[in-house]
Amino acid sequence: MIIVGELLNASRPAVKNAIEKQDEKFVADLAKAQEKAGAHYIDVNAGVFPEQEPKYLSWLVKVVQEATNLPCALDSPNPQAIKAAMEVHQGAPLVNSISLEKTRWDSLLPLAANNPCKLVALCTSDQGMPKSREQRVEIAERMVCGLLQAGMNADDIYVDPLVQPVATDAGFGEQFLLAMGDILNLFPSVHAMCGLSNISYGLPVRKLLNRTFMILAIGRGLDGAIINPLDKEMMAAIAAAETLVGKDGFCMNYLKAFRAGALEPSLAGQTGADL
Amino acid sequence: MIIVGELLNASRPAVKNAIEKQDEKFVADLAKAQEKAGAHYIDVNAGVFPEQEPKYLSWLVKVVQEATNLPCALDSPNPQAIKAAMEVHQGAPLVNSISLEKTRWDSLLPLAANNPCKLVALCTSDQGMPKSREQRVEIAERMVCGLLQAGMNADDIYVDPLVQPVATDAGFGEQFLLAMGDILNLFPSVHAMCGLSNISYGLPVRKLLNRTFMILAIGRGLDGAIINPLDKEMMAAIAAAETLVGKDGFCMNYLKAFRAGALEPSLAGQTGADL
Repeated sequence: MIIVGELLNASRPAVKNAIEKQDEKFVADLAKAQEKAGAHYIDVNAGVFPEQEPKYLSWLVKVVQEATNLPCALDSPNPQAIKAAMEVHQGAPLVNSISLEKTRWDSLLPLAANNPCKLVALCTSDQGMPKSREQRVEIAERMVCGLLQAGMNADDIYVDPLVQPVATDAGFGEQFLLAMGDILNLFPSVHAMCGLSNISYGLPVRKLLNRTFMILAIGRGLDGAIINPLDKEMMAAIAAAETLVGKDGFCMNYLKAFRAGALEPSLAGQTGADL
Repeated sequence: MIIVGELLNASRPAVKNAIEKQDEKFVADLAKAQEKAGAHYIDVNAGVFPEQEPKYLSWLVKVVQEATNLPCALDSPNPQAIKAAMEVHQGAPLVNSISLEKTRWDSLLPLAANNPCKLVALCTSDQGMPKSREQRVEIAERMVCGLLQAGMNADDIYVDPLVQPVATDAGFGEQFLLAMGDILNLFPSVHAMCGLSNISYGLPVRKLLNRTFMILAIGRGLDGAIINPLDKEMMAAIAAAETLVGKDGFCMNYLKAFRAGALEPSLAGQTGADL
């Protein structure tokens, strides 16, 4: 399971403020805390600054990579911002994300195909957001085939079947899960990744729903997630779920997490919300 | 989801003691607490008294049915005990369980086929416990076909694919989940039920694993479980999972559970262990 730490997102006021003030220490500390908590990539997002997004995203990359040993997830729908950030990024970033929307596809495809990176392929198109299992699978098929034809390795592709709120349509969770299973059956070397907090939009006790949906998604093959790695209950749920679906030989990771104190009920409720 | 409250089990010392003393109040209170917490059946088990099991199981049934409005799950591998308890049971009990072991199958089949009841069909045979997905599915097929031929309704059959510890074999969780999916695909009108705490045997933080495995199993179609209904975290996980797999139209049950205070993080850790 690839954990992408989501906290360096400019839609969070403290991060927005740090970017405006070019506060390197704040950004470095938040990156380091996520690295320590087990993140494999640090997501960087400067989407609330449309004018300066390329500049700010590049700055975030530089600060994060000076502070940690991790690559970044370049989180933007804007190909110019992705391009600028890729130019300063050391090693292979995770590009988040391409989609079947024509302008986004056309601009990002050559960038992703000609530079070492992993790529999130989000199931949306110019026809809008998919609702059914079949629509998700159709978009995913077209994207994966296009990326493979352009020369990308299947192992570098992470399909995001697009989570939508169950409060809007009670079937959206199951349609997502079924679609993900279909896509991974069609393309066994491709991965699946998502940001899943949209699932609980509009409902109470969202963390319970998010954590539960993570477990359900791992049960259908999810192997990447954009989450808050400081949320200890979420991280414990991931460790338990991976053990139970046979992805943890001799339960070694589970026992290691236990010995590190990461599974204890006494940690319930700690989410790193203060950071 | 059918919830079978598991607490009236004589393997628990307080229950054993109450049975020996014929303490009706203890049994009635524990039955009522489970009814209030949302159980649909009250499991009764007197298996630690092999000599008096028929008598004690019948006594438990009578006390539970005087105290609550619920049917019982008659929990015994002993056909004589099941028969005695069925005779005093009002309405249709859940018989837990038949298996493909020849003596158990031959004795219980006529009882189950000729009396109104629901029946758990546990995936074991005289060849022992199944290990693989395929072995589970084969045993389930033979049992379901035999039960249907004997005249049972598919809707009254609950297959238990048999949970075994992941600490023994890291693949046991996934083999169980895959087998359950296969069985429900083969027999769409049949249900799946299990007691799942064996999954975590030999590992720390067992409640985390049990709760996580419940969510994974709901994701593959589980619609009955033998659990402690006073474990609020488990009950919250079930409510969340059912909402996320599309079994909760307009999220009504989830919102109802929220309004009843059943989803709140502040309840974490309350398990009714004092009862």
